[in-house]
Amino acid sequence: MSQKIDLIIHNANIYTFDSGQPRAEALAIADGRIIAAGSVSDIRDLDGANAARDTLDLKGATLIPGLNDSHTHFAWWSLIMQELKLAGINKLNKVLDLVAESAEVTPVGAWLQGQGWDKNLWGDEFPNRMMLDRVAPRHPVALMSKDAHLLWVNSLALQLAGLTRDTPEVEGGEITRDAQGEPTGILKENAMSLVHRVIPEPTIEQVEAAIEMALPEAHRTGLTAVHSIEDAIGFAAFQNLRAQGKLSLRTAVLLGNWAIPHLQALGLRQGFGDEMLWLAQIKFFLDGTLGSQTAAMFEPFDNSPDHRHDNCGMFRMDPEDFERQARQAIRSGFGIAVHVIGDHAARLGLDVIEKMQREEDSGRLRNRLEHVQIVTPQDLLRFAASRIIASCQPTHATTDRDVAERYWGYERAARSYQYRALLYSGAPVAFGSDVPVESIDPRKGIFAAVSRRREGENRPAFFAQECLTVGEAIRGFTYGAAYAAGDERRRGRIAPGMLADLTALAQDIFVTPEDEIPQTPVVVTLVGGSPVYLSL
Amino acid sequence: MSQKIDLIIHNANIYTFDSGQPRAEALAIADGRIIAAGSVSDIRDLDGANAARDTLDLKGATLIPGLNDSHTHFAWWSLIMQELKLAGINKLNKVLDLVAESAEVTPVGAWLQGQGWDKNLWGDEFPNRMMLDRVAPRHPVALMSKDAHLLWVNSLALQLAGLTRDTPEVEGGEITRDAQGEPTGILKENAMSLVHRVIPEPTIEQVEAAIEMALPEAHRTGLTAVHSIEDAIGFAAFQNLRAQGKLSLRTAVLLGNWAIPHLQALGLRQGFGDEMLWLAQIKFFLDGTLGSQTAAMFEPFDNSPDHRHDNCGMFRMDPEDFERQARQAIRSGFGIAVHVIGDHAARLGLDVIEKMQREEDSGRLRNRLEHVQIVTPQDLLRFAASRIIASCQPTHATTDRDVAERYWGYERAARSYQYRALLYSGAPVAFGSDVPVESIDPRKGIFAAVSRRREGENRPAFFAQECLTVGEAIRGFTYGAAYAAGDERRRGRIAPGMLADLTALAQDIFVTPEDEIPQTPVVVTLVGGSPVYLSL
Repeated sequence: MSQKIDLIIHNANIYTFDSGQPRAEALAIADGRIIAAGSVSDIRDLDGANAARDTLDLKGATLIPGLNDSHTHFAWWSLIMQELKLAGINKLNKVLDLVAESAEVTPVGAWLQGQGWDKNLWGDEFPNRMMLDRVAPRHPVALMSKDAHLLWVNSLALQLAGLTRDTPEVEGGEITRDAQGEPTGILKENAMSLVHRVIPEPTIEQVEAAIEMALPEAHRTGLTAVHSIEDAIGFAAFQNLRAQGKLSLRTAVLLGNWAIPHLQALGLRQGFGDEMLWLAQIKFFLDGTLGSQTAAMFEPFDNSPDHRHDNCGMFRMDPEDFERQARQAIRSGFGIAVHVIGDHAARLGLDVIEKMQREEDSGRLRNRLEHVQIVTPQDLLRFAASRIIASCQPTHATTDRDVAERYWGYERAARSYQYRALLYSGAPVAFGSDVPVESIDPRKGIFAAVSRRREGENRPAFFAQECLTVGEAIRGFTYGAAYAAGDERRRGRIAPGMLADLTALAQDIFVTPEDEIPQTPVVVTLVGGSPVYLSL
Repeated sequence: MSQKIDLIIHNANIYTFDSGQPRAEALAIADGRIIAAGSVSDIRDLDGANAARDTLDLKGATLIPGLNDSHTHFAWWSLIMQELKLAGINKLNKVLDLVAESAEVTPVGAWLQGQGWDKNLWGDEFPNRMMLDRVAPRHPVALMSKDAHLLWVNSLALQLAGLTRDTPEVEGGEITRDAQGEPTGILKENAMSLVHRVIPEPTIEQVEAAIEMALPEAHRTGLTAVHSIEDAIGFAAFQNLRAQGKLSLRTAVLLGNWAIPHLQALGLRQGFGDEMLWLAQIKFFLDGTLGSQTAAMFEPFDNSPDHRHDNCGMFRMDPEDFERQARQAIRSGFGIAVHVIGDHAARLGLDVIEKMQREEDSGRLRNRLEHVQIVTPQDLLRFAASRIIASCQPTHATTDRDVAERYWGYERAARSYQYRALLYSGAPVAFGSDVPVESIDPRKGIFAAVSRRREGENRPAFFAQECLTVGEAIRGFTYGAAYAAGDERRRGRIAPGMLADLTALAQDIFVTPEDEIPQTPVVVTLVGGSPVYLSL
């Protein structure tokens, strides 16, 4: 009896997240799976006469289960990554040079888009369409400002939008005009939509190309897998890449509730697909957001900008309609993943899932609430009791903290983003990024969960009692995300039989100062035992 | 460098269908794939120090690539397999005993269905409802006669159908009645629909259970894979079995053109799934059948039973609608599989596929015509030129021969079921059964392609110039079917890297008298290197 070994990883500082053997120094991998973890001599003995084809010396790097992001909009992010990155550029000419370069490699007539320009960095001069016309006369150009409140376009873009001196103003926006009344090429707030609505939707080829370019960037941050909320074109693009053998990131696709009638008609079931790409839960939008004070709350927002004292946010779906559609999804063999930001939305999500568990579901399906930014104390305990996954994005806690205190007030903010309380309660917790709303980088997510501060920010933690240990934070991005996909028997731990999805970090982030976590280099990312990123 | 081996198969008479090494004696298998084929000593050397976990001595049996049926209705067949099999029973009491036994193990109130009873075998006495009432008073019973023109039901079935002495007769049918005018329980022809319409559709659990029971029967005939035309419930049942690890038959699912809008809406692509279950082409129905003289022909049917001299059959889809839907399917990333029986239908199918190849498809998609029972000489050559798959069911040639000569006449029949001519032309040919219309058994299909006679029939071959060699027939059920699924790089030959799907036969059907082919025992069926049927 013998055992083929494809790869031995040794000289590694391994955190297995497997209770049977929490630490190891070496691994043996065959056919994309881990076949053994142990000391160097354990693995050497296993190897024996039967020399492995390949070995990887990690030179002491720290190896953890492959990072897995439980909440992305991957195709959307990929498309944004294709746009010109103008953030931090402190000279107007530099921006124009980048536009000129981009125009040279882009087919004439195609839109050039970019984002992140900041006129404050070059002396507060408003740019105009003529500047863009000089460097890109034959491409429509639309560049979003850093704060996303200004759109800078060229003459061709204005022309395609049918925007002239005669165009009336838009409620809640402004078409900036020169002394003669001609649009200058700067559109403010709601006026931006005049141009946005004429920019064509990307083709499937463009989405496919964008995802292909974005994959290495995801692996560079240590990611081996994502859950991604996709529309039909994004899902199709992922399938095309998979069919060509180009998909190196395990991707659980969540389609929106728009898909239910079609999934029903076809008889599709959650899980259909393969180990690289498969259908996961159905995504619902139950309420709005904290930032826009549209999250569904039991008590009114504080400091509501419209001076209302009774703004409890809103449900984006009628509760009865939500229940009806949730039932359809579950009857069709899909779990549900429900966007809930406010405590009232969380209550409804929990109520409906528990009702479905009683009335419809044998318990086979995994149901989850996304974001879970604030819940009442009594509801917090229901995640554990009913095995409902809390799918959270730790970076939100750090970017939202001031907004949370402003609109929820201190007492309510104290029960927001309660990752520690959820873990103590025994809730299944999965972590993700919500990219492109936040950075895709899971190291930033781990740092946020551990520190509850923004990088480089000299402030105390946001409710420090909710800070996690490094191990707890990583577990959310590994086992937790795998569990949310119903996939914890093959991913999320380093143990025999598990898929060989692994992330190696240059430093041991369990012991380095927490501020170093976000910059800790990833040295190797492996998916199914194959390196998809290597920088040893 | 070493190589794990899971299984060595030796002492086998192997036909590899791989031109590099057509014959072998032994195989090495690892991880579900063939890693080597050769002489016993070749494989022994490969094995070396590294003893395989398992060996299988085939005792001289003949091993061929796993049989693959390119045209089944597997879920439908599975459901029929659940019904009482009454064919050949020569005593009325024996039929009643079987119904009584079945009633004992079936929940009260559930329908008991059966088929194949033949009153000629028990002396021509018409049975009646009272006989069934005695053995199954609390189950509605519906038993179809062998010729499918009579339905024998019990009183409960009549009651559920609302069928009484007052029910008016049905056009083209007869409700048999006794002297008092009461229905006797025998319904003829169109009157059968009065009961059929009240029999509930099977639940997904029933379909799932039926498929699970049918899988061993498929493997017993040597099948390792099928293409199956399914509706939503059948597809869902296959997915449920796959999710439970119970699907042992590789299944390429063809959904009907009803699915196109849903596939488009979701962005699903052909090929989505895994190596056991995946989405294949979209199935269209273009014309009728030979037996009902509804196949679309260029020239009228001979001897049309309605005494028309201008019956050229019919298109079941408007040609423009067919083209429009075919274009939608292909734009959505699906090849098309088109039911064409008549030569006019074949022409339209070829025309539209070639047009789509020019206008839409990069050549990546595999398109196919199903049945291809008669084509004009000039159209026959287009399959090869345009790489359009002719997906044929050799058993049809032998069961249809008299009908073909009657309704097409001798000259046209001479260009029907032209498997030899198609192969000579270079056409890609795939073979299947059309189960449950014909037996699922591929040995019967191979025999039909080779002999062009029915089993046990003492007649010359039906146009003997179209008879195939055994190797050609097997190739249609192996490589040909794999090619039709776009899957010839991993299935259909015995060669390193191919999936270890294999069928072992007790005799060498390449040399046995052809009449022995249908009864040649299958001794082993392997899927992915694992035995799914074993009778050594």
